Amino acid sequence: MSLAAPDAALTEDHFLGGRVRLLQPKAGYRAATDPVLLAAAVPAEPGERVLDLGCGAGAATLCLAARVPGLVLAGLELQPAYLALAARNAALNGVAVALHEGDVAAPPAALRAQSFDHAIMNPPFHAPADLASPVEGRDIAHRIRTDLAAWIGCALARLRPRGRLTLIQRAERLPEILAAIGDRAGGIVVRPLAARVGRDAKRVLLTARKGSRGPFRLAAPLILHAGTAHLADREDFTAEARAILRDAAPLAL
Amino acid sequence: MSLAAPDAALTEDHFLGGRVRLLQPKAGYRAATDPVLLAAAVPAEPGERVLDLGCGAGAATLCLAARVPGLVLAGLELQPAYLALAARNAALNGVAVALHEGDVAAPPAALRAQSFDHAIMNPPFHAPADLASPVEGRDIAHRIRTDLAAWIGCALARLRPRGRLTLIQRAERLPEILAAIGDRAGGIVVRPLAARVGRDAKRVLLTARKGSRGPFRLAAPLILHAGTAHLADREDFTAEARAILRDAAPLAL
Repeated sequence: MSLAAPDAALTEDHFLGGRVRLLQPKAGYRAATDPVLLAAAVPAEPGERVLDLGCGAGAATLCLAARVPGLVLAGLELQPAYLALAARNAALNGVAVALHEGDVAAPPAALRAQSFDHAIMNPPFHAPADLASPVEGRDIAHRIRTDLAAWIGCALARLRPRGRLTLIQRAERLPEILAAIGDRAGGIVVRPLAARVGRDAKRVLLTARKGSRGPFRLAAPLILHAGTAHLADREDFTAEARAILRDAAPLAL
Repeated sequence: MSLAAPDAALTEDHFLGGRVRLLQPKAGYRAATDPVLLAAAVPAEPGERVLDLGCGAGAATLCLAARVPGLVLAGLELQPAYLALAARNAALNGVAVALHEGDVAAPPAALRAQSFDHAIMNPPFHAPADLASPVEGRDIAHRIRTDLAAWIGCALARLRPRGRLTLIQRAERLPEILAAIGDRAGGIVVRPLAARVGRDAKRVLLTARKGSRGPFRLAAPLILHAGTAHLADREDFTAEARAILRDAAPLAL
C-alpha cells in the first residue's frame, strides 16, 4: 500500500458487532481477530492513558475505545500509509487518537516526553529469518525489523511505574518475550489462545506490570472455536469468543 | 527423616495402579502425582540411558521403569536418607538404578563421566525466599538450595547432543526455567497442568532437546480433575489423568 492508495484499494470492515468501522488495505497487513482480542484484554479504566505501539490502521485502539469510554489514546506507527489510515479510522469512529510516526526502537521526542498507564502491542509476527512477503506493507508489518526486545523496551520505557503492558503474539515467541521483560516487570499473566480444545496455543495474550515483583501466572486457554474441526460456511466461535469479538465483552487475564 | 529412621517412620505407597511400590517417610517430602506425571511424559525407549536429578525416594524413576522396560537408569540425590530409600525402593521393585549421592551444582565425578539420552527432574518447588518448613527433609526438598539454573545446567551438561530434558515444576517458575535453558536447548514444549477446566495451571511439564533450534510450543493443558469443584470422598480424575496415573499411559507433550 502506498500513501496515494485510492479508496478502491481499501475495504471497510466491521469489528465488535459493528461498533468499530475500519478502513484497511485490500492487500498487506489486515486486522483480523488479534487486535480485537488484544483490546479486550486491556483492563483500562476511563481517564487512563493508553499507548498502542505499532498501531497500524488503529484496530486495537478503536476496539478498546469502543469498550471503555474516556480513554486518552495515542498510537505509534512506522509506516506513513497505515498512520494515515489510522487517522481516517479514528475520525470515522469519532475517537480522538494522538498519532505519532516513528519506530519503537527510536520513538519521536513528543512521545518520549509522555508516560502512559497502559502500553499495548500486536508486534509483527515473523522473525527476520522468515522470508519477505511479496507485498511491501505486509512485508514490513509481518517481519521483525526491530527486535521484539525493542518493542518491549519501548513499552516499558513509556509506562508509568506500575503501568501495564498488554500484548498479543505467537505462542512460539513466548520465551523471547519473557526474556525481554526480564525483571523490569512482574505479575505476568499468560493466557494461551487456542483454536480448539486440545490444540496447541498459536497465540498468547500476555500482561505485565512495570516494576512489579508479583508471581508469574499461566491462565487457562481461551478457546476460540467450538467443536473439533471447522464446519464449512458456519461461524463456530465459542460463546466466550463470540462475546468478546461480537459483543465487546472484556477478556479476563 | 534421618538415616536411622525406623520402618515405623515409613509408609508403603502404590503408584500406577500398584505397578510401583514406594517406601516414603511419613513426614517430609512425599511423592504424590508430580513424579508420576513427570515419568509419564518422558518419551524414553528401551535401552536408553536416563538420569533422574534429585531422585528422592525414586518415584519418577520407578514409574518410568514400570512403563518402559530395558532402560539404563541413574539417580542423583543430595540427601543420604532419601538415597537409601531409593535403593530400597529399587530393590523392592526389582529395578536396577545406579544411585549417586551429591548436589546438582557439583555432581560426583562418576556421574560427570557419563552422558544420558534423557535427564528428568522434579526440582524443589520453593524459591529461597520461602520460609523453611519445620521438618528438615521437607525443608531441603522443598527449598531451593541450588538455583533452578544449576539443576538445568547439570541436566544439559549430562545430556548427549540432542538428548532430552523433561521436568515438572510450578507454573510460576516457567520464566526462570526458560531463562535458564536459554539457547542451549530448543524444541521446547510446555504442557500446562491444571486441576480443572478454566483454572490457572499450577504446574507445567516441560521438555527440551539439547542443541535443538526447534520452535517453542505451548500445548493444551492436561486437566487433572473432572467437574468444577471437588466432591468429597470421591476420586474425580479425568479419564486422561486416570489413564496416566493408574494405567501407566504415556503423557504426550
